Amino acid sequence: MKIRIGIAGYGNLGRGVEAAVTNSEDMELVGVFTRRDPSALKTITGAPAFSFNDAKNMQDKIDVMVICGGSANDLPTQTPELAQFFNVIDSFDTHAKIPEHFANVDAACKKSGKVGIISVGWDPGLFSLNRLYGQAVLPNGQDYTFWGKGVSQGHSDAVRRIPGVKDAKQYTIPVDEALESVRAGENPQLTTRQKHTRECFVVAEEGADLAAIEEAIKTMPNYFADYDTTVHFISEEEMARDHSGIPHGGRVFRTGVTGLKGEMKHVIEYSIKLDSNPEFTSSVLTAYARAAYRLASKGESGCKTVLDIAPALIHSESPEELRKKLL
Amino acid sequence: MKIRIGIAGYGNLGRGVEAAVTNSEDMELVGVFTRRDPSALKTITGAPAFSFNDAKNMQDKIDVMVICGGSANDLPTQTPELAQFFNVIDSFDTHAKIPEHFANVDAACKKSGKVGIISVGWDPGLFSLNRLYGQAVLPNGQDYTFWGKGVSQGHSDAVRRIPGVKDAKQYTIPVDEALESVRAGENPQLTTRQKHTRECFVVAEEGADLAAIEEAIKTMPNYFADYDTTVHFISEEEMARDHSGIPHGGRVFRTGVTGLKGEMKHVIEYSIKLDSNPEFTSSVLTAYARAAYRLASKGESGCKTVLDIAPALIHSESPEELRKKLL
Repeated sequence: MKIRIGIAGYGNLGRGVEAAVTNSEDMELVGVFTRRDPSALKTITGAPAFSFNDAKNMQDKIDVMVICGGSANDLPTQTPELAQFFNVIDSFDTHAKIPEHFANVDAACKKSGKVGIISVGWDPGLFSLNRLYGQAVLPNGQDYTFWGKGVSQGHSDAVRRIPGVKDAKQYTIPVDEALESVRAGENPQLTTRQKHTRECFVVAEEGADLAAIEEAIKTMPNYFADYDTTVHFISEEEMARDHSGIPHGGRVFRTGVTGLKGEMKHVIEYSIKLDSNPEFTSSVLTAYARAAYRLASKGESGCKTVLDIAPALIHSESPEELRKKLL
Repeated sequence: MKIRIGIAGYGNLGRGVEAAVTNSEDMELVGVFTRRDPSALKTITGAPAFSFNDAKNMQDKIDVMVICGGSANDLPTQTPELAQFFNVIDSFDTHAKIPEHFANVDAACKKSGKVGIISVGWDPGLFSLNRLYGQAVLPNGQDYTFWGKGVSQGHSDAVRRIPGVKDAKQYTIPVDEALESVRAGENPQLTTRQKHTRECFVVAEEGADLAAIEEAIKTMPNYFADYDTTVHFISEEEMARDHSGIPHGGRVFRTGVTGLKGEMKHVIEYSIKLDSNPEFTSSVLTAYARAAYRLASKGESGCKTVLDIAPALIHSESPEELRKKLL
């Protein structure tokens, strides 16, 4: 019997889950739930679209609802709401609000007897796991996280809000010297500026004051002021040709020492390089949907995160096979 | 209340666990169990030494016994034996025999109501975890494992057995071109020779036939014949000065594609660089000893591996703290 998946929300993330579920032999896609007019929605696989409001009438048809909304406005309400009816999973990534979101989803899940898994993706997600494993194994040490090279949606949006900007794309880039220093086990103290640079590609409105736009970007507090930022003005054609993808990546280091006197140094480095940030996040969500199903089948309920999930639960093969092939 | 740890076997691994436990605030070391004369054993921290045979009389004094014997001769009997009396953990690394060892330890643990965790370290261990996470997230893809640069104890021993060899150290070295090809997402098919080279440092007996030794190394089946091997003859002084450490390392890749047509490529790379192979393995063992204690406290029993253990169980902080700090 296959795991029956529903997708709530149909943007980049929802389409990614649709593809990932379609490529998973132990899963089937029941349909996509949208707040738009479902009859107007064409899914990439031809999977049926339903109205968001009809979801609760389909409880017996769906094992896990993968919620693909945004962290700012959708997930804080959608995940607890849908957890009344379904095992749920989301990619909530507003780091500071995770404890609050966890509490809300946990309360809803405990009431309904369902399993919820929140903040699934790569950061939070696989990067969090690597921080945990690194700290547990090398308690006497230091963490470093670098992001990029990749597109930051939030920073791109911030540039687009500047008057005179028609379109913009912002890349976050880790600084090579910082990476090398961490990798060499030098335990550097790095400022924001020393860790990442920012590169912006901007399509300006006709007649816009380019110098003013560049100045507005480089001095923008929180987003750019603490970084070395490069601004390139390009044409709409160049934007479409060279910057249409959503690549990303990053790396988590744990460096530490062992021995009674800390005489032995060790470096752990986990890195990812992604052609498509949303498709990779979708793939992580899909794997953890499997865990949600299995935990619910064992009678568990409540909210979990990747930190609480035994790794074998996310893999399609049996524990016996995994022991034989992966250990 | 601290987790009370016993160490069974006192070689490099046992000393590493002794240091790691001493550096862990939530643990205390009860003592070391040895098959040698305990009164003749001086531990690095001054922890008491007991006879192996007295272990079973100390069941109420020890929460987890970390078994630090060798995989070839010690662990297959010691781990099931000690699992009659203790929660146990070992670093059994004979990959092909893991299912058999698992079954033996599982039977002993189920009978005694204890928890056993086997094959803990980095390979098997952290590398196995990374293979699992990589496969689960990118099911349409390929695994690659590279070892080194580091000392292979087995290969060093094999060289030492050649007539005329007084001492030897063998380094396994990954081939840069292979790493680059995998990292670029080229999905290469790599032969044994294309993945690693081997470098041997040999101290010859006086008057030994060096050409014959080199020939014997390079043509040795299984160990060297399938590799490009370099042999250096050095003095005893050089051996002591330049090759007394036990560094190691390696990397696990998962490369794969997502999207309905597999149009997006992704690369995950996990790498470790270790000054001391046994001390790092000891650190992993010590972290998983914490998980064995917690699982046993929850009333669980039976054999587990790293693949079955929820990550949060190996970290000293509470799930709430971990969610706040690591997600």
